[in-house]
Amino acid sequence: MDFSEPGDLLERISKGDVRSLARTITRVENRSADATSLLRHIYPLTGKSQIIGITGSPGSGKSSLVDRLASYYRRQGKTMAIIAVDPSSPFSGGAVLGDRIRMNALATDPGVFIRSMATRGHLGGLASATADVVSILDAAARDPILVETVGVGQDEIDIVKLADVSVVVLVPGMGDDIQALKAGIMEIADIFVINKCDRPGVENMERAVQSLLSLAHRPDGWVPPILKTIATEDQGIEALAESIQQSFEHSKTTSLRSERRRDAARQRLMSLLREQLVRKAIETVFPGSEIEKLVDRIAQRETDPYTIVEEIVRGTRFGK
Amino acid sequence: MDFSEPGDLLERISKGDVRSLARTITRVENRSADATSLLRHIYPLTGKSQIIGITGSPGSGKSSLVDRLASYYRRQGKTMAIIAVDPSSPFSGGAVLGDRIRMNALATDPGVFIRSMATRGHLGGLASATADVVSILDAAARDPILVETVGVGQDEIDIVKLADVSVVVLVPGMGDDIQALKAGIMEIADIFVINKCDRPGVENMERAVQSLLSLAHRPDGWVPPILKTIATEDQGIEALAESIQQSFEHSKTTSLRSERRRDAARQRLMSLLREQLVRKAIETVFPGSEIEKLVDRIAQRETDPYTIVEEIVRGTRFGK
Repeated sequence: MDFSEPGDLLERISKGDVRSLARTITRVENRSADATSLLRHIYPLTGKSQIIGITGSPGSGKSSLVDRLASYYRRQGKTMAIIAVDPSSPFSGGAVLGDRIRMNALATDPGVFIRSMATRGHLGGLASATADVVSILDAAARDPILVETVGVGQDEIDIVKLADVSVVVLVPGMGDDIQALKAGIMEIADIFVINKCDRPGVENMERAVQSLLSLAHRPDGWVPPILKTIATEDQGIEALAESIQQSFEHSKTTSLRSERRRDAARQRLMSLLREQLVRKAIETVFPGSEIEKLVDRIAQRETDPYTIVEEIVRGTRFGK
Repeated sequence: MDFSEPGDLLERISKGDVRSLARTITRVENRSADATSLLRHIYPLTGKSQIIGITGSPGSGKSSLVDRLASYYRRQGKTMAIIAVDPSSPFSGGAVLGDRIRMNALATDPGVFIRSMATRGHLGGLASATADVVSILDAAARDPILVETVGVGQDEIDIVKLADVSVVVLVPGMGDDIQALKAGIMEIADIFVINKCDRPGVENMERAVQSLLSLAHRPDGWVPPILKTIATEDQGIEALAESIQQSFEHSKTTSLRSERRRDAARQRLMSLLREQLVRKAIETVFPGSEIEKLVDRIAQRETDPYTIVEEIVRGTRFGK
């Protein structure tokens, strides 16, 4: 089989061929020579799927929640995808613990395409790489696309911004400490889920979220609901799916969805620009390993990064 | 008083003037016209202070731990600094909840310079902005500099990499879920602290960390200790400070410290380059508000970001 033509690959993808889908994602992740060409062909086909972001601290049980939600969508006959964004090792360059074991039923179901993404090794940043993979899945008519992220860093916020609907997963017992979650993730949330709600402290957690919500200003008038689930027992999943759909419908009645899509487009443009410009600057200005000599000189305080960067930027000419 | 000359400001900073220190940081954070000039003058004065990274999930009590550690260093007569990196609001552009209330004794002590940094509004990224502030505090002979971060995103990992010694704060009761912390933060840790160790589950947590450590390869032979603290009761703080010092001394006997400083220099160079090149590209190629029109066209799938970026990069000429 010849997969070398973007056209071929795209046709196979749009026909639902899972191997071609996996292959395209790998090519794009590895920045193979035709990655940009592929993405350029894919981009006009995107913007149709519903993108659902699921964020939660480690231990919130969001993976189980995502698995259950996926099973629910499968029962609705949807052909969907899960992207699990995982931090990975700065020493080994890969996740030490490997992918967690997904529910068996999902792992063998071709109707759920599952992809893990590690934090490391994405030149343009994790948000940029995730946006690429979301685009490919969107073009492959995977709908919905669940994007699962850990943590509250800027990367995660940027990833969550790709989503049409964002779900933040909390657990009881963090009540006193919910301030620490701060606004970064809290304000981006369309829906709050208190998972593991068989544990004590549900009411405290609910009050804490409500008091945070009372501080946040939502320009679109959506009031984020606070739902309760026990993912491991499949409780509350249908209500969550319905709430996601309501939030999605609401977003279409306001300008928020189009604003989010504009934000996502802006972010995509900027991160690509950063990545490509820096790559070209390095290739041109520091051929070979010269950059490491500069790094040495900076580390030893013989020069400073500000001077070096100003030199490069001063010497750069932009045209069209 | 005239603060307009970088030289004046730097002299005041190196003499320990707190107002000048705060002013310099604000200028650099706000990217005032002389920010680069200031940073360039400051850079050769840096590399002397001990930088200690403290990372932990929301609710791990790391703020209390940092406060107690700061009090300990103050009792040793050190003139130090705390940088608290906080996620902030994507809607309002600032932390909704504001800075948490620090221990009163620290807040009024000129020997502890405290600065909060929000996630948003740093063109070159949070890690880049934090590196700038660390440099200024380093030049001001604040030693040690405690950098406190939340979460496990790439931003946090980049910030932690600035540190000479990294401390990861855990709490009992997350035993089953420690896998979720994954390698990103786990492997970068020089010291693990189990805080709130009066809670049940300390042994489980300790075992979990030990089993993770057994998977990680440390090229420098340092075996990260697992310490136990109750920060709110000031227990275990002195042992932690001693362990930090031991890790620091050890790092000087191996190549790891110089490698970390090289990594920090490389990261600094790259993030500045990204920031400056993109700023110049936007100013040159998209004067005025034209970029928003492009963003609109991308959001509406009339064009794609890959084509736009390729056009800009193809038109860019680098020189020296």
